[in-house]
Amino acid sequence: MISVVIIGYGNVAHHLINAFSEAKKVNLIQIYNRSIKKIEHLKEKKNITNNLQDLKKANIYIISVSDDAIEEVSSKIDIENAFVVHTSGATSIQKLKNTGRKGVFYMLQSFSKNKKVDFNKIPFCLETENKADLLLLEELASSIGKKIYHISSEQRKQLHVAAVFVNNFTNHLYKIGNDICKKNGIPFEILYPLIKETASKVENLSPIEAQTGPAKRNDGKTIKNHLDLLNTEQQTIYKLLTQSIQNG
Amino acid sequence: MISVVIIGYGNVAHHLINAFSEAKKVNLIQIYNRSIKKIEHLKEKKNITNNLQDLKKANIYIISVSDDAIEEVSSKIDIENAFVVHTSGATSIQKLKNTGRKGVFYMLQSFSKNKKVDFNKIPFCLETENKADLLLLEELASSIGKKIYHISSEQRKQLHVAAVFVNNFTNHLYKIGNDICKKNGIPFEILYPLIKETASKVENLSPIEAQTGPAKRNDGKTIKNHLDLLNTEQQTIYKLLTQSIQNG
Repeated sequence: MISVVIIGYGNVAHHLINAFSEAKKVNLIQIYNRSIKKIEHLKEKKNITNNLQDLKKANIYIISVSDDAIEEVSSKIDIENAFVVHTSGATSIQKLKNTGRKGVFYMLQSFSKNKKVDFNKIPFCLETENKADLLLLEELASSIGKKIYHISSEQRKQLHVAAVFVNNFTNHLYKIGNDICKKNGIPFEILYPLIKETASKVENLSPIEAQTGPAKRNDGKTIKNHLDLLNTEQQTIYKLLTQSIQNG
Repeated sequence: MISVVIIGYGNVAHHLINAFSEAKKVNLIQIYNRSIKKIEHLKEKKNITNNLQDLKKANIYIISVSDDAIEEVSSKIDIENAFVVHTSGATSIQKLKNTGRKGVFYMLQSFSKNKKVDFNKIPFCLETENKADLLLLEELASSIGKKIYHISSEQRKQLHVAAVFVNNFTNHLYKIGNDICKKNGIPFEILYPLIKETASKVENLSPIEAQTGPAKRNDGKTIKNHLDLLNTEQQTIYKLLTQSIQNG
């Protein structure tokens, strides 16, 4: 049995609490949040607190707060040799300022509060300072998930920026597609199957092999026709990405 | 029963031949290709030809050749009042130069020769010059599929450029994600679940509502950290898309 305290109550914490509550190997003994109001509904089933001095003894303390608060919150955990991990993709393990052991328990996915999470499909990116703690984090991850990776702070930074490209920026291209459809009375749903196919193709084919379209085949006539249909901002993006595809 | 002749043997034609061969309401009576060699393996089951003067009588002639060849190929079909349709997303109905009736039978999806196509999930974008032909094309589409839309040539042009954003350009962002991973010894597969989640999210949430990340929340510190990790070309794309997200 692994005893866990969760610190924070954002999207990630919310889903972790649900998952750990159902996991057989995990004993979720306490939840901390700065504002007690937001976690009061958990009171009947779990011990809750808004005081970091009142944390109970546990095998692992999971800090799941905004990136900027990790340093301060971790510095206030003064339980001897406590094993404290954060869940941030963009934050180095070094930002943890507790005096004990440190680690990272980063789940690479975009969490929404209202959407159920299938942890079996989520990659757990783990980092610790020593082997024993790594085994402990692996055990915790495997109690709710399957896909476990060892990712250093340096790699995690890179992974985080890669995620911005395949998530935020990709979503912005969907937004442009949606804008074009809306403007022309076309239901955006016509593009759903193509969006899904594009996303699933890269699991079998590397993105560079999967590429098709006017940029790839250097079809200047179609590119010109397309540019004529776009507004200035869309044109700038179209031109830059076309050129980048052609650079290979 | 709808009798059909398919003209051309690219990816789209290949999958249409398979689908029509299994459809109960369709009689695929002939396949034309400029090079007879490429379709010779179909000889035992279908009538084949490489001569447009030898086309058999049919309810619908489907031209599925490269965009540039549509005009010439259609002009050579001299069967009286023949109903000729093309399958191109980027080509106006007016490019058909046959003397009879004209239409468009455009399936919005990225086809690969080796990957089986689920036509039930593919949007059929139909256009004709008159109502009777539209009903005929609808019947043909519903013999192999379910999602049927009426899309004018003007709308189809717009849809085609929107498809470049959500398919080619999105795939290029996956390629950049892959490049970053490769360079840092990170398995690209870690990003698959995020890629899939991003793609499926827009079915329930508009892309603008689904947006998250440093650009959206105006997190200049993270943006600066990200830029420091990228090469010049990646930086240019990162900056432009970040700004475009912030423009809203």
